[in-house]
Amino acid sequence: MTFPLKLQEAWKNNNSLVCVGLDPDRARIPAYLSKDSDVVFSFNKAIIDATADLVCAYKPQFAYYAGQNALGSLRKTLAYLRDSHPEIPIILDVKRGDIGPTAMMYARECYDYYEADAVTVNPYMGSDTLKPFLDDPDKGVFILCRTSNPGSVDFQDLKIEGDGRRLFELVAEKAVKSWNYNGNAGLVAGATFPKDLGTIRRIVGDMTLLVPGIGAQGGDVEAVVKNGLSGTGTGMVINSSRGILYANNGTKFAEGAREATMLLRDQINHARAAILSSQN
Amino acid sequence: MTFPLKLQEAWKNNNSLVCVGLDPDRARIPAYLSKDSDVVFSFNKAIIDATADLVCAYKPQFAYYAGQNALGSLRKTLAYLRDSHPEIPIILDVKRGDIGPTAMMYARECYDYYEADAVTVNPYMGSDTLKPFLDDPDKGVFILCRTSNPGSVDFQDLKIEGDGRRLFELVAEKAVKSWNYNGNAGLVAGATFPKDLGTIRRIVGDMTLLVPGIGAQGGDVEAVVKNGLSGTGTGMVINSSRGILYANNGTKFAEGAREATMLLRDQINHARAAILSSQN
Repeated sequence: MTFPLKLQEAWKNNNSLVCVGLDPDRARIPAYLSKDSDVVFSFNKAIIDATADLVCAYKPQFAYYAGQNALGSLRKTLAYLRDSHPEIPIILDVKRGDIGPTAMMYARECYDYYEADAVTVNPYMGSDTLKPFLDDPDKGVFILCRTSNPGSVDFQDLKIEGDGRRLFELVAEKAVKSWNYNGNAGLVAGATFPKDLGTIRRIVGDMTLLVPGIGAQGGDVEAVVKNGLSGTGTGMVINSSRGILYANNGTKFAEGAREATMLLRDQINHARAAILSSQN
Repeated sequence: MTFPLKLQEAWKNNNSLVCVGLDPDRARIPAYLSKDSDVVFSFNKAIIDATADLVCAYKPQFAYYAGQNALGSLRKTLAYLRDSHPEIPIILDVKRGDIGPTAMMYARECYDYYEADAVTVNPYMGSDTLKPFLDDPDKGVFILCRTSNPGSVDFQDLKIEGDGRRLFELVAEKAVKSWNYNGNAGLVAGATFPKDLGTIRRIVGDMTLLVPGIGAQGGDVEAVVKNGLSGTGTGMVINSSRGILYANNGTKFAEGAREATMLLRDQINHARAAILSSQN
């Protein structure tokens, strides 16, 4: 099944826009798991088992595996996800961006070796660097647009001469006009700038937005839903990582993760219901 | 030794601004090597043995290893380089860019796990995403500025309202004014836009530029040297990958690589000599 279809099914079947970020930090994984042969995988598996009926996607952040010599645990986690929950799409957060032949190698890494359903990519180098990812209609490609971190103002916020709009708005326009030829392009739009999220939504119609920045980074759920919801009442993959993984740091971390995921799902759905009913 | 010092020594001792890009593509590695247990490493080792006295740096492109399930060969190549040629700096081309805590994990990957002397990073997400790399004064950090690919015009070339300069010029200015607090910041400036290389040089003074795009991508050596040379007659790491690795595709690929590297070094030095003598 293609990523866009898989995501639509997961949105509907789990009635959830929540994505759990699988960013395991060994320094924060509960100590009692340390007897396990693969601590990172054990942690991820417990989180997945506790949340799979509450989410529309999982998003492993590549850096947490690459930086902790745990790429084997990433592969194991992905294999477990595919086997136990083939209905939940996997977004591999790699933020790649490189010249054509190199980007092709990265696409092979993400699509063939890790078998991800979707990836994140960086637009700074332009269209030809995104093409190898977009060319596969089965895969989803989330292009960085307005990111959730403080430094996103440095360049994304600059106004473009002769156009008057800001850089991230031009990225959004390009996504909808040039990059969506397979219907698989999406954008990354941070929860920490809800007004900009609304601007992006107006530019891209119903295109899917991956929204980080809820929870640890301080994004407000209601403002995100109000600004980011698509005309179909979905259109967003709202990610939380630390706020879910470390909601409870003791032996009950999985229960804590389940509760935090449920709470976020319900907050989002509450805000969705209010908006959808006000439109009727 | 810090990266900036190591690079200066290598420029001087080998009288060379050439960097060999270690981007091994299994489909192009000579067939007779296929009996080796680690084809990618064997290929790299032969290239290194044939060129180490002619270069100022090596630049392995992470994607070629990640995309061919060969990260073990990358580690082996780096260990071999450190043991056999500790005087030649290694630039790991990863083009990372992510929020602070994630960037910290990527810095651990590049600096601790791969023990690279320098890295490449993407500025789209802003200052806080570069800081974890720049904070280590021993390491070099090359920030994408004006890249060599056709798509680099899409965003890097846009004029900024109220400033009049283009996006890549603002990146260059930020590099020299804000990001060089440890004296370890550099920029990536493509050989395919020599005029823009000159613009960047005027903005950043003697800051080191990593220059891809010579050879297979069509950049002109003389124009690059004319526009990119620093006041000290160096200031550039001029990379060639495919033009050197596949100069000769038979059993004599290593000799071919040596000849191509020597030719490029001499072309660059010829152009340098002409410029330096005209300045005296």
